[in-house]
Amino acid sequence: MADQKANIGVVGMAVMGKNLALNIESRGYTVGIYNRSASKTEDVMKDHSEKKLVPSYSVEDFVNSLETPRRIIMMVKAGKPTDAVIDELLPLLDKGDVLIDGGNTNFHDTMERNARLDKSGINFIGMGVSGGELGALQGPSLMPGGQKEAYDLVAPILNQIAAKAPEDGEACVAYIGPNGAGHYVKMVHNGIEYGDEELIDESYNILRNVAGLSVPEMADIFADWNEGELNSYLIEITADILTRKDNLGTDNPIVDMILDRGANKGTGKWSSQDALEIGVDQSVITESVYARFISMIKEERVKASKVLPAPSGEVEFNPDEIVEKVREALYFGKVMSYAQGFAQLKAASEEYDWNLKMGELAKIWRAGCIIRAQFLQNITNAYEKNPELDNLLLDPYFTDIAAKYQDAARDVVILATKAGVPVPSLSAAVAYYDSYRAEVLPQNLLQAQRDYFGAHTYERVDRPGNFHYPWYEEQ
Amino acid sequence: MADQKANIGVVGMAVMGKNLALNIESRGYTVGIYNRSASKTEDVMKDHSEKKLVPSYSVEDFVNSLETPRRIIMMVKAGKPTDAVIDELLPLLDKGDVLIDGGNTNFHDTMERNARLDKSGINFIGMGVSGGELGALQGPSLMPGGQKEAYDLVAPILNQIAAKAPEDGEACVAYIGPNGAGHYVKMVHNGIEYGDEELIDESYNILRNVAGLSVPEMADIFADWNEGELNSYLIEITADILTRKDNLGTDNPIVDMILDRGANKGTGKWSSQDALEIGVDQSVITESVYARFISMIKEERVKASKVLPAPSGEVEFNPDEIVEKVREALYFGKVMSYAQGFAQLKAASEEYDWNLKMGELAKIWRAGCIIRAQFLQNITNAYEKNPELDNLLLDPYFTDIAAKYQDAARDVVILATKAGVPVPSLSAAVAYYDSYRAEVLPQNLLQAQRDYFGAHTYERVDRPGNFHYPWYEEQ
Repeated sequence: MADQKANIGVVGMAVMGKNLALNIESRGYTVGIYNRSASKTEDVMKDHSEKKLVPSYSVEDFVNSLETPRRIIMMVKAGKPTDAVIDELLPLLDKGDVLIDGGNTNFHDTMERNARLDKSGINFIGMGVSGGELGALQGPSLMPGGQKEAYDLVAPILNQIAAKAPEDGEACVAYIGPNGAGHYVKMVHNGIEYGDEELIDESYNILRNVAGLSVPEMADIFADWNEGELNSYLIEITADILTRKDNLGTDNPIVDMILDRGANKGTGKWSSQDALEIGVDQSVITESVYARFISMIKEERVKASKVLPAPSGEVEFNPDEIVEKVREALYFGKVMSYAQGFAQLKAASEEYDWNLKMGELAKIWRAGCIIRAQFLQNITNAYEKNPELDNLLLDPYFTDIAAKYQDAARDVVILATKAGVPVPSLSAAVAYYDSYRAEVLPQNLLQAQRDYFGAHTYERVDRPGNFHYPWYEEQ
Repeated sequence: MADQKANIGVVGMAVMGKNLALNIESRGYTVGIYNRSASKTEDVMKDHSEKKLVPSYSVEDFVNSLETPRRIIMMVKAGKPTDAVIDELLPLLDKGDVLIDGGNTNFHDTMERNARLDKSGINFIGMGVSGGELGALQGPSLMPGGQKEAYDLVAPILNQIAAKAPEDGEACVAYIGPNGAGHYVKMVHNGIEYGDEELIDESYNILRNVAGLSVPEMADIFADWNEGELNSYLIEITADILTRKDNLGTDNPIVDMILDRGANKGTGKWSSQDALEIGVDQSVITESVYARFISMIKEERVKASKVLPAPSGEVEFNPDEIVEKVREALYFGKVMSYAQGFAQLKAASEEYDWNLKMGELAKIWRAGCIIRAQFLQNITNAYEKNPELDNLLLDPYFTDIAAKYQDAARDVVILATKAGVPVPSLSAAVAYYDSYRAEVLPQNLLQAQRDYFGAHTYERVDRPGNFHYPWYEEQ
């Protein structure tokens, strides 16, 4: 073993770390592996004794098992466990080594760690990894941010293990930018994922509870949608889910046995919190986060359902048109959600000085990750035509989609509003469209109010400057 | 001067600090005043030489000018300036002195400072002050949080300077809770204020751009609304604003000369960020924050207005009903916004262990502050009847309002959606109502999706526990 140094090391042998190590090994590399508790490492070696894996049972042995400059990917829990691993490794590393955090880390932490380790000459990359367990094994989408020279040291490996876009075979990995850029982009990816899921769930709710369709009928509809412009991983698995029967004793569709409490692991909300911080409207995603929150208070909802009445009006719709309308509304909502997400990325790039390449980001989401979709090729195209595009809605393809589908989106919001079926994200999408294309918004009145009670001043339509109106003087 | 110690001191002689000092002095107290730059203090003394004000021009003299235990209110900018004043004062203070931060400080900072100063035996109160410049002078709403024994030392003064509720003459101040509780409550107050303003602005936009009413007509309508259940400071000033003519050379209503870019000073977003943090749906307020953000990108909107088309459908409404419908929708939206705001306060009370008294909070907002309104008496009543109320919507008064006005709220959302006029906060209010009263939401599908791609497990409707479905096995 002494002569045969591993090309790269992976810390953390939970399923994501194990699968990423196996993925790397499958490309011809020797991979050093280490886990705090030895049993996980032993299990991996038991199951994969034939693989070019170099197990270590102390952090010293692990560091010594790697060729220099060392390349180490940490796949451990975000937060304190990550800091604990860094603190253990740091005294053993040499200048120029590259430490990669592949966890779901908050970008603020990554920025801080990158700066701190940089002082010791250690390169620190925060890398978003999307695609779940299977993605890690077969090809994830990778979003590494940190020192460019550190990226170059790992780029050949990352290029081989990443998913390949079906359109052109390009690897779903690119250098994102300095310090926290990679984890930020992953965070917005997760926010967009929340939005996609909520828009699908709202569509399902309307098809089911307004249009009155059965679960098998909806399975066919989602399968059909997956053949067209909505083609994506999430639509595909939704279609599959709707075909599945309960496996625990009933004959019902599995969805009917699942409790309607939408959990979250916290990364979705970060995206909304930072949109608020940097001043970007990200309403569609934020509504999807809130939709999960309110779904969680099931007991309160059941209580409320008994006292708060449904709307009294009649609900009419054309059964021949409803499915297509919902499809168009879903696509419209998706366009608004991505327009907001990419506007957030553009604003963050300026705020944090990252020089993000929007087109690259869309490109590396085309495969491997949860939001992979045919749709992302259109975003790639838009930024290839105009890398400085202010908003996706100003690209002709998306302008056209918005124009074509806005009526359906409005009709579905109206239908849901009449029926008393909540569509928070789709409503936000329509409001965003109408706000974004509004030459004049009513915030002139807001500025008058703020100047009235707080002397905050106002701007004028006819000249530059800030003005205060003498509200408390008699006219 | 040596014998005549001041009863209380105020640091910071910008307009808020000056007015608060004058307010305290007017109740019979001698007030020590200090400002970093002497000129501001000199100006105050020049204008108010007859008042019982004790000016100091060094922090040592200021501290020595106060009777013990000292009571000092800081009215300085939040953030570093506040820390700078604390650092100057701290070495000069004695155990048991009370330092009060009356700025718009983030509650996290207040929690940290309270804990830090407590170690030196100094009591630290974070106090929300609402009411603007005039409120500070004539009677603000005060939201102090910190050590209870420190509150007791200042309570007599705070009771005298605070606004008095018109309903029962009670002072608009109460002990809110430990450490950051006061600033948290002020933060949610500001969020609610954002929501109120946005709902008014959306109503104005519909009256103007859908119903086609003139500015003078709208002035009369808001004045009329102020006579009824919408009676509040913000409706009152909106009516007044709409009567005002430009004072800089045109004959137009002043609102028509004000640019539609809605600024913000950052406190509104904190409320949304923490709602996201603690898992509470606060969609109406958050949409109002986003509405300001999107209003700010005026140039982009003007560009977008030329390429993104308006809806093509017809917009019909009954001119005899539209004003009343908008009024009811506005009240409905307000109820949803406050239901969310108070749900957030309840959740925060548990999260941060503050033991907030909801009824007290509604009470002290009845006068003095920007959101003062007749409406707050109804909230006070609701929590007096049931201090443990989960959500305002479950109180009979609010259940009834929601039931009565939901149809109008739906009609206005539908009308605005057809007309292409954005109503993000009102839409969010309707979606919230329909989500909260939904016995079943579509998050069963979400849980299936999450279990499918991430093995996140799901709960079942027929038994407790967490389950994983074998999605990747053939059926």
